Amino acid sequence: MVNSNNRPLILVTNDDGHKAGGLEKLIGLAAEFGDLVVISASESQSGRSHAITIKDPIKYKMVEEREGYTRYLVKGTPVDGVKLLLCSLLDRHPDLILSGINHGTNSSTSVVYSGTMAAAIEGAIHHIPSIGFSLLDYRPNADFDAAEAHIRHIIYKAINAGLPKGVCLNVNIPAVPEKELKGIKVCRQTNGYWEEQFQEREDPRGSKYAWLTGSFTNREPEAVDTDEWALKNNYISIVPVKTDLTAHEVIPRIRDWEEKRQTSEKERKI
Amino acid sequence: MVNSNNRPLILVTNDDGHKAGGLEKLIGLAAEFGDLVVISASESQSGRSHAITIKDPIKYKMVEEREGYTRYLVKGTPVDGVKLLLCSLLDRHPDLILSGINHGTNSSTSVVYSGTMAAAIEGAIHHIPSIGFSLLDYRPNADFDAAEAHIRHIIYKAINAGLPKGVCLNVNIPAVPEKELKGIKVCRQTNGYWEEQFQEREDPRGSKYAWLTGSFTNREPEAVDTDEWALKNNYISIVPVKTDLTAHEVIPRIRDWEEKRQTSEKERKI
Repeated sequence: MVNSNNRPLILVTNDDGHKAGGLEKLIGLAAEFGDLVVISASESQSGRSHAITIKDPIKYKMVEEREGYTRYLVKGTPVDGVKLLLCSLLDRHPDLILSGINHGTNSSTSVVYSGTMAAAIEGAIHHIPSIGFSLLDYRPNADFDAAEAHIRHIIYKAINAGLPKGVCLNVNIPAVPEKELKGIKVCRQTNGYWEEQFQEREDPRGSKYAWLTGSFTNREPEAVDTDEWALKNNYISIVPVKTDLTAHEVIPRIRDWEEKRQTSEKERKI
Repeated sequence: MVNSNNRPLILVTNDDGHKAGGLEKLIGLAAEFGDLVVISASESQSGRSHAITIKDPIKYKMVEEREGYTRYLVKGTPVDGVKLLLCSLLDRHPDLILSGINHGTNSSTSVVYSGTMAAAIEGAIHHIPSIGFSLLDYRPNADFDAAEAHIRHIIYKAINAGLPKGVCLNVNIPAVPEKELKGIKVCRQTNGYWEEQFQEREDPRGSKYAWLTGSFTNREPEAVDTDEWALKNNYISIVPVKTDLTAHEVIPRIRDWEEKRQTSEKERKI
């Protein structure tokens, strides 16, 4: 790993594969702040979530190395790539992990399906400040330039102010021209869900199959402190995302199940 | 869907594939409480997390149908299977989703990698009471009988007391004989992480690949309110898991980044 100076070491990855325009944009912006190690998959890993490859070996190769820049290709999921660097290929932890810029939204519930966000969450599990960036435009030639001043600001703050351990950021960017971007809103995840419309087909031998397509339902369209509201109103949304999934406030209610059970068992014995 | 009576409709799934002993055990226990619709993958989906199949079609077939019992095989991830039933094959939402019993632990951070828990989380996203069960024994012939009275109790309570919307349960069971099981502890997720040891190899043509193996580090081995502590002390652990990943307590700190930026921008203008 080439890192002979005091510049921050930044890991850059994505889930759209190594040819994605969003990755190239993020590499360009990240290089202003530090030395880079880039890892990306040879094919798109959209929707792979936090999947890891257990039953097959993970193939990888270094494809570029120069002062302050090392790049790997991996045949695996985004989390495989992050783990490979953190636990094997790097001789020290990076100071920051940046994932994206994803071609398409990862707001609201999409955070759980997203390979982009899984890479950032994996960083947070290892207590490394990590950010996933997504632009609400699925097209390969999406315009990643409009928000670049804001992305720079977010990277700068993450490096200089840091992030709490076990927390990463989910940054989504509306697909509007620069002059229509109103700024940044720090929000909570919208309560919503994807309702799938399976397009059912039959193959020539009569076997059934379905194509998964979906539409998003926002359960709280009126709420103004959510990422969906921010994005609809041309703000960049930042949701801090935690790796502790415990519903702490629900623990007493479930404990109550157990206490009632023990009481009734004691009563039966009497 | 055969459901002509007033029995609860229970969706049963897993991530170890349709031949897993843990799935058969769960089907047997669930059938005591309601009519079943079972969906499982033809091959193991361990470590697939919340992955969904976007670029390929999802193949499926009904393999069994009798009074109160319908069974499907799917070529897809656990979440694909749950979505296929919820959004397409069933004419009403099930009253309960049960996933497992997984062969191997899904405690602590493993919840984010787990296909078993992803199926339960998908249920919670759709506001259906959902539970993932895992036994801390990876072997195909693991003994799923020791905890059956406790599993019955948990299913009974979930049906009769319900669960808060957007919350599911992560139940892990220590691999000990029935008489050594001390009971149930309702816990929080342990702060820990998997450190991977990549076993690196070279194929005959000189290309590099690595096998992912890992060991778990508990960052808080002394804490007594965690799932790891419960399991080490022969208790079944229940962690309520939420689908809102927002780190709400961190929002003010990140908002502060923005306020300072706006102040300094205003100062520059003056």
